[in-house]
Amino acid sequence: MSAIKTAGRQAKAVVLLSGGLDSATVLALTSQEFECHALSFNYSQRSLSEINAATQLAKRYAANHQIIKIDGGVMAGSALTDVTIAVPEKMSDGIPVTYVPARNTLFLSHALAVAEVLSSQDIFIGVNAVDYSGYPDCRPEYISAFENMANLATKAGVEGKRLRLHAPLIDKSKAEIIALGTKAGVDYSLTVSCYQANEQGEACGNCDSCQLRRKGFEEAGITDPTRYF
Amino acid sequence: MSAIKTAGRQAKAVVLLSGGLDSATVLALTSQEFECHALSFNYSQRSLSEINAATQLAKRYAANHQIIKIDGGVMAGSALTDVTIAVPEKMSDGIPVTYVPARNTLFLSHALAVAEVLSSQDIFIGVNAVDYSGYPDCRPEYISAFENMANLATKAGVEGKRLRLHAPLIDKSKAEIIALGTKAGVDYSLTVSCYQANEQGEACGNCDSCQLRRKGFEEAGITDPTRYF
Repeated sequence: MSAIKTAGRQAKAVVLLSGGLDSATVLALTSQEFECHALSFNYSQRSLSEINAATQLAKRYAANHQIIKIDGGVMAGSALTDVTIAVPEKMSDGIPVTYVPARNTLFLSHALAVAEVLSSQDIFIGVNAVDYSGYPDCRPEYISAFENMANLATKAGVEGKRLRLHAPLIDKSKAEIIALGTKAGVDYSLTVSCYQANEQGEACGNCDSCQLRRKGFEEAGITDPTRYF
Repeated sequence: MSAIKTAGRQAKAVVLLSGGLDSATVLALTSQEFECHALSFNYSQRSLSEINAATQLAKRYAANHQIIKIDGGVMAGSALTDVTIAVPEKMSDGIPVTYVPARNTLFLSHALAVAEVLSSQDIFIGVNAVDYSGYPDCRPEYISAFENMANLATKAGVEGKRLRLHAPLIDKSKAEIIALGTKAGVDYSLTVSCYQANEQGEACGNCDSCQLRRKGFEEAGITDPTRYF
């Protein structure tokens, strides 16, 4: 990740910030080199405590923070957006019911518009395709296809101000991400990964996301600061 | 355009419906073969009368109609979303100030989520790249790149329920579109193309969009039913 300096000022980056472990790590790393504009989304998800976590993280890294509302119902039919579908407590084969239709595409499309408005050519997303839930929109081939589409979509792209979509964690294990972030000083007690965290940001310890997170801290040999309910 | 029948019922299509001439034509044609779910967007655009037009058109073609709000400010800096930027009254070289950042990408991303929720594999958009304003997200290469990305993004795509993104007007002139729609019985007096139409849906007659529309009717030899203010 090399910084792009513009006339003595730091270049701007748009960073997707869910409030989880991965995006917190990306924000910490990116803020070392860019002026960051963090985007979080309210898409009527089950746990809104992750947005509170994102707000704390944006403050910590002196990033602008924009919380964008996505109209209710658009991303229906997932355990994360429909409280009548239970969050599973063991990892599944295939794509789990926590999959949210077109989630990263919607997030990145908003980021693309915001990047163009801010004259930023760099969007960062904390997806990873190693210790992950099998979501299709976390894979490198998806990231590459989105970047290609984005550069055909916009005035900026057509005029040669090429957009770069960065997924710096894509080939890292959860343990590697935690080690990287810890080295960069990330306070993971501020982050919320749980799909059904309570209002205080306490985690269930059982969902996919909690299991991947817990295993990551164990493998990294770093004390897990997660508060479980 | 061939219909895909599912167990005796019509397959569902998601149709982007701005309320303008092109999307009205697409809805009329698509509704002959699909059960249509029309999407319109409130993105704090200058003229909201096009949404009223879309509502009338959806009723006319017995389509479900969903109006989705896109969070204010995301698509800023265009003459269509910022009333301090004047709508130009002559066609410009290059991409005009009426370009809205990532507009079709945001619209299509919502359509992608809705299509997956509805188990629809067909999204229709009324872009055309002949008599158009030079927007990058109306070109065939963009449409193709979006379709490619979409099939990598979703559970449906990964599971082999391939999404098809149809742009049936993409290589047609405005006159050809009007002739096609007129043959299909479209009542163009219901449509609003003007970038700055008033609340009654009356058009300025001078903006890019009005000029392209007027020229289209002239070339098609069809009486222009547009009400000008």
